[in-house]
Amino acid sequence: MNVPLDVRFVLDKTTHPGNIGAAARAIKVMGFTELHLVAPSDFPDARATAMASSAHDVLESASVHRDLDTALAGCTLILGTTARLRSVAHPTVGPREAAQRIVQERGGPVAVLFGTEKSGLSNDAMARCHVLVNIPTGQAYQSLNLAQAVQILAYELRMAIGQDGVSTGEQPEVVPAPDERMQILFAKLEQTLADIRYSNPGQTRTLMYRLRRLFLRARPDDQELNMLMGILTRASRAAATHGPPLNVTEPKR
Amino acid sequence: MNVPLDVRFVLDKTTHPGNIGAAARAIKVMGFTELHLVAPSDFPDARATAMASSAHDVLESASVHRDLDTALAGCTLILGTTARLRSVAHPTVGPREAAQRIVQERGGPVAVLFGTEKSGLSNDAMARCHVLVNIPTGQAYQSLNLAQAVQILAYELRMAIGQDGVSTGEQPEVVPAPDERMQILFAKLEQTLADIRYSNPGQTRTLMYRLRRLFLRARPDDQELNMLMGILTRASRAAATHGPPLNVTEPKR
Repeated sequence: MNVPLDVRFVLDKTTHPGNIGAAARAIKVMGFTELHLVAPSDFPDARATAMASSAHDVLESASVHRDLDTALAGCTLILGTTARLRSVAHPTVGPREAAQRIVQERGGPVAVLFGTEKSGLSNDAMARCHVLVNIPTGQAYQSLNLAQAVQILAYELRMAIGQDGVSTGEQPEVVPAPDERMQILFAKLEQTLADIRYSNPGQTRTLMYRLRRLFLRARPDDQELNMLMGILTRASRAAATHGPPLNVTEPKR
Repeated sequence: MNVPLDVRFVLDKTTHPGNIGAAARAIKVMGFTELHLVAPSDFPDARATAMASSAHDVLESASVHRDLDTALAGCTLILGTTARLRSVAHPTVGPREAAQRIVQERGGPVAVLFGTEKSGLSNDAMARCHVLVNIPTGQAYQSLNLAQAVQILAYELRMAIGQDGVSTGEQPEVVPAPDERMQILFAKLEQTLADIRYSNPGQTRTLMYRLRRLFLRARPDDQELNMLMGILTRASRAAATHGPPLNVTEPKR
């Protein structure tokens, strides 16, 4: 996505200022800046600043609101996060689908709303949400830290944005050497194994099959292949210099 | 998920005990329990306990290691997390693909490795990884908090497990040899390269890094590893029998 995403992270009645700081860092690291605080217990606070690390700019520019009204003003889509499935018949999605909805939103700003550390979203807050976002957890323990919840949502948003912009996924690690070069490697390997007397000539079929499979799995690139060829040359040379002559050609290295 | 996933979260040389506690909570909330700490600066520590909240059981049962060897012992798949794309051509995936790979792993335990707060994964740690996991961030600020990185990986794992209940995935043809055996292979390889005079002792760092990467990509199983060890023994022997003495121990083969 190339359009800047207008999304605010809204923390409702946060008790621990450290969580506010950690949330600031969590959103900044994913490329977001808008932090809104509704009636925080202690703010500003040195513990918030400490946890924000280099995201102090996000913290300093955070909007502090008396209630949800101003925090959500202008928002066309409001999502409330919960760690537990609420019994209310509210449309509920996972963080991934939530992120998809957010990046597809073409209206005004989007708010992602987080409840208190102790009891999560209040009924009042939930009543303002278009959608609830249930963050999946293990069965045994479902107490997700507030800043961690913020991190997961911010991360999913970053991932959703990345799909049409900078994508993650696999780096083109290596360009594997072409087949003809692999065959040269295998021929040389077979010769070296004979030179160092690991294998008996004529009985290398199974052995070479297994080695081929191993190196084909690794898919060496040209440079790696050169390295392997160099090692084989040296090994053959070590055997040939002093050992019995065994078809060793003069190494180039 | 019905099959228990054998995954350890390994924190290497963590400086701030609060992060250890937050990491314990982060994994527990996603249903995981195995926390391994390699040479933590301060541990146990009241700050760790405070941040762990109700995950004190995970914290108390955390294994503390002197080095990576024991922390990674037995692991057949090791993933190292980075917030920055490293220039090295190491296979790199995003957290989502990483989670898929982990749930598909059919070998021994899987390790997800996290570097220090300050500088991330060390080169030594990276050299042991089969795959790097790059957590996407915004462009402007990429400093992801350690516990937040743990949370994202644990969350993606929870999501990957949740998708298919019992994780499916292809049956790999080989059960990869565990980390400790790979380390023995690499040590022997380094020795053999010196024996056959391919490398100069003390100048093998880059060379060994590249070879590690190649063989980690291939993921040899125990049998293949025995075969490679046998070849190295023969090569060293070929060099030693006639060449100058070069620290060669008597081969067993």
